Amino acid sequence: MEKVAVLGGGSWATALVKILSENKSEVHWWMRNKQDVEHLHTYKHNPRYLSGISFNLEYVKPSVAIQEVVAAADWIILAVPAAFVQQALADLPEDAFAGKVVVSAIKGMIPKENILITDYLARQYQVPNTHQLVIAGPCHAEEVALEKQSYLTIGSYDLPTAERFCALLRNRYVKANPLEDLDGIEYCAVMKNIIALACGIARGLNYGDNFQAVLVSNAMFEIERFLDAIMPQHRALTGSAYLGDLLVTAYSQFSRNRTFGNMIGRGYTVKSAQVEMNMVAEGYYAVQSIYELNKKYKVEMPITNAVYLILYDRISPTMEFEILKEKLT
Amino acid sequence: MEKVAVLGGGSWATALVKILSENKSEVHWWMRNKQDVEHLHTYKHNPRYLSGISFNLEYVKPSVAIQEVVAAADWIILAVPAAFVQQALADLPEDAFAGKVVVSAIKGMIPKENILITDYLARQYQVPNTHQLVIAGPCHAEEVALEKQSYLTIGSYDLPTAERFCALLRNRYVKANPLEDLDGIEYCAVMKNIIALACGIARGLNYGDNFQAVLVSNAMFEIERFLDAIMPQHRALTGSAYLGDLLVTAYSQFSRNRTFGNMIGRGYTVKSAQVEMNMVAEGYYAVQSIYELNKKYKVEMPITNAVYLILYDRISPTMEFEILKEKLT
Repeated sequence: MEKVAVLGGGSWATALVKILSENKSEVHWWMRNKQDVEHLHTYKHNPRYLSGISFNLEYVKPSVAIQEVVAAADWIILAVPAAFVQQALADLPEDAFAGKVVVSAIKGMIPKENILITDYLARQYQVPNTHQLVIAGPCHAEEVALEKQSYLTIGSYDLPTAERFCALLRNRYVKANPLEDLDGIEYCAVMKNIIALACGIARGLNYGDNFQAVLVSNAMFEIERFLDAIMPQHRALTGSAYLGDLLVTAYSQFSRNRTFGNMIGRGYTVKSAQVEMNMVAEGYYAVQSIYELNKKYKVEMPITNAVYLILYDRISPTMEFEILKEKLT
Repeated sequence: MEKVAVLGGGSWATALVKILSENKSEVHWWMRNKQDVEHLHTYKHNPRYLSGISFNLEYVKPSVAIQEVVAAADWIILAVPAAFVQQALADLPEDAFAGKVVVSAIKGMIPKENILITDYLARQYQVPNTHQLVIAGPCHAEEVALEKQSYLTIGSYDLPTAERFCALLRNRYVKANPLEDLDGIEYCAVMKNIIALACGIARGLNYGDNFQAVLVSNAMFEIERFLDAIMPQHRALTGSAYLGDLLVTAYSQFSRNRTFGNMIGRGYTVKSAQVEMNMVAEGYYAVQSIYELNKKYKVEMPITNAVYLILYDRISPTMEFEILKEKLT
């Protein structure tokens, strides 16, 4: 029996626990909230996310003790928001991940430091490249809960390890494929949230479907230029892990980034949009990280720059999109 | 004053007449239906499509006399359904287009013959490559009517001519750019209707957003393989003219191809879906043409093949998509 730890109690973590435990992996599930863990032990449901899923406690072991959860597993899946990774892992000793494979299901970067999650794990916990994986692919957790056909891509520097992990995920409604591009996939997952935010702003400003299609097309070039500058490698960017992931976010009515952007486009301030939504869209942090990082690379990124200026420099969305639209083709 | 003929009375033709005439080109507008022409002369509106647009008859000259319309103009825009091109042009002499630039706004092929509109014009009317253009880009006619920001790409073998045509289109809400790829753009516009149809079938079968994102990602590879086989040339396929055009169709609730596919997925027969919709989706013809054409090239096209088998060989959509989903990544 494979032993997997899932860190995080959100919808994506919950969906992954469902997939893994139904495949009869032993899943040690860490979440911060004690009441939620107790609820899971008593009722077999996560009270907060995808609460329709009933877990088999023979395979699922919810716990608030992160050290024990990590110690018990060979595969460690991180599925907490990027902004809370440091805090979530703070209690772990530096060698907590020694000999284990760490899988990032996080679509974001370490705020302020502007580094990828995998780079943080390498630096802080000496997790080598070969023992790191990222999960990508167009995958609404809600659709996994409904057992709708989904496809995951496992990014890696070590394809045999990625392939072993894919085997833990594959089932009747989930296909999983390894791909030799850890960082590219990870950056793309970060940037797609910025683009979804931009799509939301456009919608809030009353731009239509024609404009959004052009925005997404231009975004693909922007992502390509950035990845080519930061880590050149041939990538089939129209693949599921890149374009697919972007599409499901940019075209989803349920995307938090899109919703947040929409409110900004309609004239909400960042603060009031955050208060109204009662959460922070990941693209809000992502755009700052990519913008800061790009000061070094100086890649032409009109969409990212526009979103940054609107969110952080309080430039009027109307004005900024008037400028942006002239730069798109 | 530039003299332009627009052939066709549908929504795209109507939107193009609006753009051109507002830019003060003299637009000779042919449509088959005499009542519609009379309505236009009397009320300045096209009674059937985008009927909110009021035309300035100083610039717009509606007519049922196709020979006169063509003779009066230097630019001829074809905007009739692909299936009716031969019939629409039947009354024209073979030299009708001599010295003129012919612009195809048609997204389809000549049925049975399985050739592009531009190839048909070359063969039947000796229109040289240098005098042909195609209009592409993500552009719902309805959004043009609403003056929402849109982007058109003009495909061409002769960039100066394309640039001159772009100048006729550009305005406050329309950007137009030339691109040196006539046939690639034209094929892509045909294939996008097949993909939109496939997206509709998937939706009808109750597949979700995750699957659609993967379907579109895989479709981009399918389009790339086909174009590389049929006319190799470097193409930035994530551009507005290719990916953008596909997105606006595949993700639109208003796409006829998508709607048609949806009904097929829900179990309607082709006949009953056509009767119910009271029109034929262009992807229905397109898939036959591409499928037949591909017998020569033998490109791996799982999505196109699946749509063909469902529509023409009456294979069950459920079964065919069970097979298709195994081929996607």
